[in-house]
Amino acid sequence: MHRLRHCRGLACVFSPSAQSALKLKNNIPLASCSGLVSYCWGSRSSHQGQSSYYYSSWRPRLRYVLMSLVAGTGAVVAYGLHQVKSERAAAAVPQTVSLPVYTQEEVMKHCSLDKGIWVTYNGDVYDITDFVAIHPGGNRILLAAGGALEPFWSLYAVHRQEHVQEILSGYKVGVLQAEDCKKQEAANLVDPYSTDPPRHPALIVNSLKPFNAEPPPGLLTDSYITPSALFFTRNHLPVPQVDPNKYRLKIEGLPSGTMSLTLNTLKSNFPKYTVIATIQCAGNRRSDMSKVKPVKGLNWGFAAIGNATWSGARLRDVLYHCGFGPEVAAKARHVQFEGLDCDVTGMPYGVSIPLNKALSEEGDVLLAYEMNGEELPADHGYPVRVIVPGVAGARNVKWLGKVVISEVESECHWQQNDYKGFSPGTNWDTVDYKSAPAIQELPVQSAITQPVDGSLVDRRMEEVNVKGYAWSGGGREVVRVDVSVDGGKTWHVAKLRDNGEDEFPAPSPQPGRAWAWKLWEIAIPLPEGAEVLEVVCKAVDSSYNTQPDSVPPIWNLRGVLCNAWHRVKVKVN
Amino acid sequence: MHRLRHCRGLACVFSPSAQSALKLKNNIPLASCSGLVSYCWGSRSSHQGQSSYYYSSWRPRLRYVLMSLVAGTGAVVAYGLHQVKSERAAAAVPQTVSLPVYTQEEVMKHCSLDKGIWVTYNGDVYDITDFVAIHPGGNRILLAAGGALEPFWSLYAVHRQEHVQEILSGYKVGVLQAEDCKKQEAANLVDPYSTDPPRHPALIVNSLKPFNAEPPPGLLTDSYITPSALFFTRNHLPVPQVDPNKYRLKIEGLPSGTMSLTLNTLKSNFPKYTVIATIQCAGNRRSDMSKVKPVKGLNWGFAAIGNATWSGARLRDVLYHCGFGPEVAAKARHVQFEGLDCDVTGMPYGVSIPLNKALSEEGDVLLAYEMNGEELPADHGYPVRVIVPGVAGARNVKWLGKVVISEVESECHWQQNDYKGFSPGTNWDTVDYKSAPAIQELPVQSAITQPVDGSLVDRRMEEVNVKGYAWSGGGREVVRVDVSVDGGKTWHVAKLRDNGEDEFPAPSPQPGRAWAWKLWEIAIPLPEGAEVLEVVCKAVDSSYNTQPDSVPPIWNLRGVLCNAWHRVKVKVN
Repeated sequence: MHRLRHCRGLACVFSPSAQSALKLKNNIPLASCSGLVSYCWGSRSSHQGQSSYYYSSWRPRLRYVLMSLVAGTGAVVAYGLHQVKSERAAAAVPQTVSLPVYTQEEVMKHCSLDKGIWVTYNGDVYDITDFVAIHPGGNRILLAAGGALEPFWSLYAVHRQEHVQEILSGYKVGVLQAEDCKKQEAANLVDPYSTDPPRHPALIVNSLKPFNAEPPPGLLTDSYITPSALFFTRNHLPVPQVDPNKYRLKIEGLPSGTMSLTLNTLKSNFPKYTVIATIQCAGNRRSDMSKVKPVKGLNWGFAAIGNATWSGARLRDVLYHCGFGPEVAAKARHVQFEGLDCDVTGMPYGVSIPLNKALSEEGDVLLAYEMNGEELPADHGYPVRVIVPGVAGARNVKWLGKVVISEVESECHWQQNDYKGFSPGTNWDTVDYKSAPAIQELPVQSAITQPVDGSLVDRRMEEVNVKGYAWSGGGREVVRVDVSVDGGKTWHVAKLRDNGEDEFPAPSPQPGRAWAWKLWEIAIPLPEGAEVLEVVCKAVDSSYNTQPDSVPPIWNLRGVLCNAWHRVKVKVN
Repeated sequence: MHRLRHCRGLACVFSPSAQSALKLKNNIPLASCSGLVSYCWGSRSSHQGQSSYYYSSWRPRLRYVLMSLVAGTGAVVAYGLHQVKSERAAAAVPQTVSLPVYTQEEVMKHCSLDKGIWVTYNGDVYDITDFVAIHPGGNRILLAAGGALEPFWSLYAVHRQEHVQEILSGYKVGVLQAEDCKKQEAANLVDPYSTDPPRHPALIVNSLKPFNAEPPPGLLTDSYITPSALFFTRNHLPVPQVDPNKYRLKIEGLPSGTMSLTLNTLKSNFPKYTVIATIQCAGNRRSDMSKVKPVKGLNWGFAAIGNATWSGARLRDVLYHCGFGPEVAAKARHVQFEGLDCDVTGMPYGVSIPLNKALSEEGDVLLAYEMNGEELPADHGYPVRVIVPGVAGARNVKWLGKVVISEVESECHWQQNDYKGFSPGTNWDTVDYKSAPAIQELPVQSAITQPVDGSLVDRRMEEVNVKGYAWSGGGREVVRVDVSVDGGKTWHVAKLRDNGEDEFPAPSPQPGRAWAWKLWEIAIPLPEGAEVLEVVCKAVDSSYNTQPDSVPPIWNLRGVLCNAWHRVKVKVN
């Protein structure tokens, strides 16, 4: 059974107070859900049970609203925009008793703006022609024109909320005839997430559909290599079902045209390399950031990070094999990746990395087909994913379908309008996604996995044992972790552990190739008379970058890049 | 005329209170001086005129004392160790009137521990045999055995202090005959720094001999390219006089044995590359750190940084030309550099960098013979220096004499026991230099050059103009600078300036090759009613590392790596 920390997929959990807080002027309720599509921003609650926070200024900008939703990811809702039109529409709503009955065939004729856009939902027929222009997801809504909404709403589960149906009701023009209703019901039984793989029951679930989950932090530092079943999972869409025999990796942008490689070719024709690399979600520790002020995104704790061995062909070997050479090098600057996980329109998950990272012998970018010595689990990209060591998880594309050598970055939402960092002073009114670079290398990070926040320490123990992890992006080795039990006034140097398992000896990394985290621990004497300990850690990497002291100065509206000192409070009894 | 901010070379400036604070139990005075050799630690005063600080626990560890002083750099004094012996010696001091007269020849016979160690100073003869073991500079003192102290004290000007002469007086055994005195006086007129080049009068001098100086911060951001004459100078020893026709660069550690390259060979046989690179001293902003707690080192302000164009041969081209290949690559890990600037024993300045930085096409390491389009100035390494972009100034060796490919780092003091970072909890009792990596890449940095700390802002102006620089090590481009006028509560995004001079267009850097700083500026509305503004800046680099909030948590006993938010206070009138 999954523990639902804060379900943001199929169903949304809201306290009554949160719901009322989210109602807009015109009493149109606005709820939070950030599975595939998020219909509001600024609302959140942490899994530790703190009260919810709401942003005081709710002024979404249509451009970002549309861009975000078209991309089918967690995003800003624009249902507030609906309010003016809904008043008009509401005035025109006829009573159900007097509504005509339509056949599916008649509905299907209304599939263009000229002829009107009709859709069906739950046996009713709606003319949403006027709504198209204000649909938060843009004209993607036209995909449903003349047909049923259910297949789309099951993918973008955020629609399954009372307030969305309320809005829809304003456009009702008839009912579907009984026979067609039955046909639809049969078809609608298909859940796009029904083929998602089984998961480990220990995972703390942030969102079930799509699946996003992290392990309990205590388990995280039990082993230097994170067991695959406990490795955090960040899916943007349903897990694609890939037949390994039919799998083809397409390589584009080279003089020879599109190349197509089988799984067997990847495994047999290229040397197999193995790296131990830590992958961290750019949103790791978002829950620390949202304590300061609401942010938009999955409410990750501090375990959206893991360390595994990855084996596969080097991307550079494959690119050179496929014809990469000086001619391409003269122009190309980026390598784009596309996943086989597609949204309802067939648009795949896509991002890119700089070409020099992909080509460098020291970049260690892999087309990995093994994780921890076994074939990739479905949730981690079976049969092939990219491993871009030192770089944010978002660029380590799973279920890899296509590699494109290009002069430009990926045009996809996840490269252009997501996974970027902004100043604390930037809000949704002023944000300009073009002004910030896509997150690639991540900054230095560390967190405390023991003691647990809010736990008790026995004064008779004389010492408090502190454990955690530390890692930095760009292959910069963690060279020191400082730990304090008095909130940062005095510091102790923790003992670093490169690895603890004989079967996974971590080689001494070359400068710039330290891809794996370090686990650390220290026993610190209990300060005399202290009743509360504020345990704090900060890591230093080989470029002597260190973590900022506090969260507010690095707060950003997307809640990414949260790497301030990690803090845990414990009581001494 | 040089403005002596805090002379730590030839003569030391002390307030009477500072001197008394430094007296030890037995009334042996202990003064601070950190030119070539520092005879105490924990004492300092900033150039802004704050009162001096003294470390409460004065417990030098002989090992570090000797290691530091043997290396001829600023270091810990061990004159406290002298106190026991001095009591004994003081009891034995005869009156001058009864002292015998010795010839230079007789003195010269006492040049070994067997025969006793005699030296002369200012016409007097001293038997320092008992002092050798407790000399802070270790047995390097034996170099003066049988001769005059003056040539050594002129190089290590720290000796020229009253308390050192007081100690020496305890060992007096005679006077030198008049004729030999005259000969010595003639010889002692040679000042090893007499051939140092003329310098720009605007420079703020930290130490005259050796010369260490930085420009006034306001001038620093006047131009994207720092004029050579205003570029901060960090010399460890006298500037060597190099005849370009006799200059030879030695390359060692390759199968072909020692190679020797002329200046002309470097210029003619290898393609000339130019990079715009910022060089920053690892001790930049040390004065901010020493406000928290005393640190050891030159009291740099925040202008020990500059940006210049550097032209020369690529080190990788030279190494491959000299026979670098797979055979060497299999073993070698470091490239050591030695300067032609030597201490009195002939030991050169020496450090090393990782081999992969030196060999990478994207590392852009140059054997530079030009700075800002002209041959290197004497203070900046004429005729050849190494430019290691993105790496601390200390590794950018000037007056380059030798390059050694090696399995190990340089064994020199500056690599092993200096230029390393430690935890704030590490003190001189607990420091273990082996536990920390040598500083290579520097962390992200920024500072405010306008307004000046303590200045006035006219309320009628409505805005305050803020300017500064920002840079990060490792080729990580500065992507954003946040500025606050309320001490960090609210933030504004500054406008970045890549370059401002048509003659030096900065090319758009590839990822990981952004070697040059960015100048930035912003006009921020004056907060209503504010009487004091705390102006603060922090930069973010392409790996989204940012600067820590405050200095105390990054304080370290050497005062290096000070990159906390830069803060300036101004009054509104």
